[in-house]
Amino acid sequence: MKAIVFDNGLKLDKNYPKPTPQKGEALIRVTLAGICNTDYEITKGYMGYKGILGHEFVGVVEEVNGEDKSLVGKRVVAEISYGCNDPDCEWCAKKNYRHCPNRHTLGIWRKDGCFAEYMTMPVNVLFEVPDNVTDEQAVFVEPLAAACEITEQLHIEPMQKVVVLGDGKLGLTTALTLNSQNLDVLLIGKHQNKLDIAKAQGVKTQLLETFTPQKIYDVVVEATGTASGFETSMSLTKPRGTLVLKSTVASGKELNLAPIVIDEITVLGSRCGQFPPALRLLKNKRIDFTPFISGIYSIDDAIEAFEANKSKESIKILIKM
Amino acid sequence: MKAIVFDNGLKLDKNYPKPTPQKGEALIRVTLAGICNTDYEITKGYMGYKGILGHEFVGVVEEVNGEDKSLVGKRVVAEISYGCNDPDCEWCAKKNYRHCPNRHTLGIWRKDGCFAEYMTMPVNVLFEVPDNVTDEQAVFVEPLAAACEITEQLHIEPMQKVVVLGDGKLGLTTALTLNSQNLDVLLIGKHQNKLDIAKAQGVKTQLLETFTPQKIYDVVVEATGTASGFETSMSLTKPRGTLVLKSTVASGKELNLAPIVIDEITVLGSRCGQFPPALRLLKNKRIDFTPFISGIYSIDDAIEAFEANKSKESIKILIKM
Repeated sequence: MKAIVFDNGLKLDKNYPKPTPQKGEALIRVTLAGICNTDYEITKGYMGYKGILGHEFVGVVEEVNGEDKSLVGKRVVAEISYGCNDPDCEWCAKKNYRHCPNRHTLGIWRKDGCFAEYMTMPVNVLFEVPDNVTDEQAVFVEPLAAACEITEQLHIEPMQKVVVLGDGKLGLTTALTLNSQNLDVLLIGKHQNKLDIAKAQGVKTQLLETFTPQKIYDVVVEATGTASGFETSMSLTKPRGTLVLKSTVASGKELNLAPIVIDEITVLGSRCGQFPPALRLLKNKRIDFTPFISGIYSIDDAIEAFEANKSKESIKILIKM
Repeated sequence: MKAIVFDNGLKLDKNYPKPTPQKGEALIRVTLAGICNTDYEITKGYMGYKGILGHEFVGVVEEVNGEDKSLVGKRVVAEISYGCNDPDCEWCAKKNYRHCPNRHTLGIWRKDGCFAEYMTMPVNVLFEVPDNVTDEQAVFVEPLAAACEITEQLHIEPMQKVVVLGDGKLGLTTALTLNSQNLDVLLIGKHQNKLDIAKAQGVKTQLLETFTPQKIYDVVVEATGTASGFETSMSLTKPRGTLVLKSTVASGKELNLAPIVIDEITVLGSRCGQFPPALRLLKNKRIDFTPFISGIYSIDDAIEAFEANKSKESIKILIKM
């Protein structure tokens, strides 16, 4: 089968062996997948991962290795981590597979990804896509779930002021998601065309160049992935407020953490999320991801798709299998 | 009057003008004061402060400028920050003067400190010292309140595992304080003689060199003030656990914050605390600070006292007025 493989270099392998589902797994024919910044980071060495890339997808179950075949023929998405399922594992017991110390993570850690014609995943992390949700919307469920994670971790009160920094796909998705929960959100970014996507769906937006920083926000979401964005975020967080750190990119920089102590700020690391609340938002048409799509490439043009993803103009690049 | 003043250099001024209490303030004759690492940081430029140093003290009220004279003649301690008391200030309304944007902070920010024969402070931040608490114990109330601050900010459950990193005065005080609240605390440090102070009062202790780091702690308190201590703290915090940042020293270093996101860690900045719970611990003899005292110097020997404070062997240096 065709697969986009990273092994020091990025390449399209046209003869990658088709996977066989293990006990408890489904074989999925991938129909559409999305490139995430994490995929790009992996091609620069992140996590030391080698194998098929990709963790955002929608596909159709062709086969299940197990007794319950009810998902065969169904359109599905998958949470990207699965755990050990040991009865003593507190994380697996709570379906928080993403924190299981023995987890596998699709296209990131010990598990071939979804940029291929076929893939396998355990059925217990699969979710059926509602009929009224198109592939082009469903393919966004993973980053949408990551945005929903914020309100799983943190109680944001309706009267609190929230600001999201960064108008890339992460910042846009986060602002739209918090807005879809009726929170008071301001999105700050450098690109009017990107801000307009959020604005059209009801989010308050402002260009960074016209924004006067004030230390008045109860919740600040850092979604720029830069050290300077992190520092700006600290300067916007009111005493005892929360700075949500959504990006792993701002690392290895000189950072002065003194404001965290002086203002008793809470810095909350936030990563992947569970899928049901994200699927609920999609089913109820609370967010439209259509304007995010900057291009749809055939898997045959995978290398071009990765190049297009690097462009500052791109928001989301999709790959059709 | 005699006063220890920082103005680019540190000096003992024998003719500093005695302060006059403003409306709502008390004039206090200082009897005993303690040197904090923050004082030492100020002599290296922290906060750009100039004036009388010091914020840990016990003293006797000689005079009150105001109608209520009930504190005259009483032994008192003072919370180190006082606020604007504007009716619209949310922080002053909650007596959280330490976060009032227009605050003054004793010996740190816009207010002469306590390393002097006399000082003034608003009566609304003064607390009478219980009769059964000696000056040598009461002088520790400020760092003790800072340690009590952790459980004001964070609910630590009785079954959770807590580890404190660092056996300086900050780490020792924190470990003893959490232990005095019946929490399950382990103190890690490099100095057996310092660890023994906590051990003698019931804290579990271990030398760093014999400690095997494991990512199993619900709450990790970073009290080393070093970048490597911060990194070790991240490696000990279990997924979704809390890293309490107690020190402003670990700054301007290259730090990789990715573990915060990957393990969804909460980093909680924690600074000063309110005095009533600290005074309660002292009154009930839950902690004995006697073994902390490495030396008591006369104000005439202030420069020597600051030199003694720099020694790795010292825990707390006190100054008698």
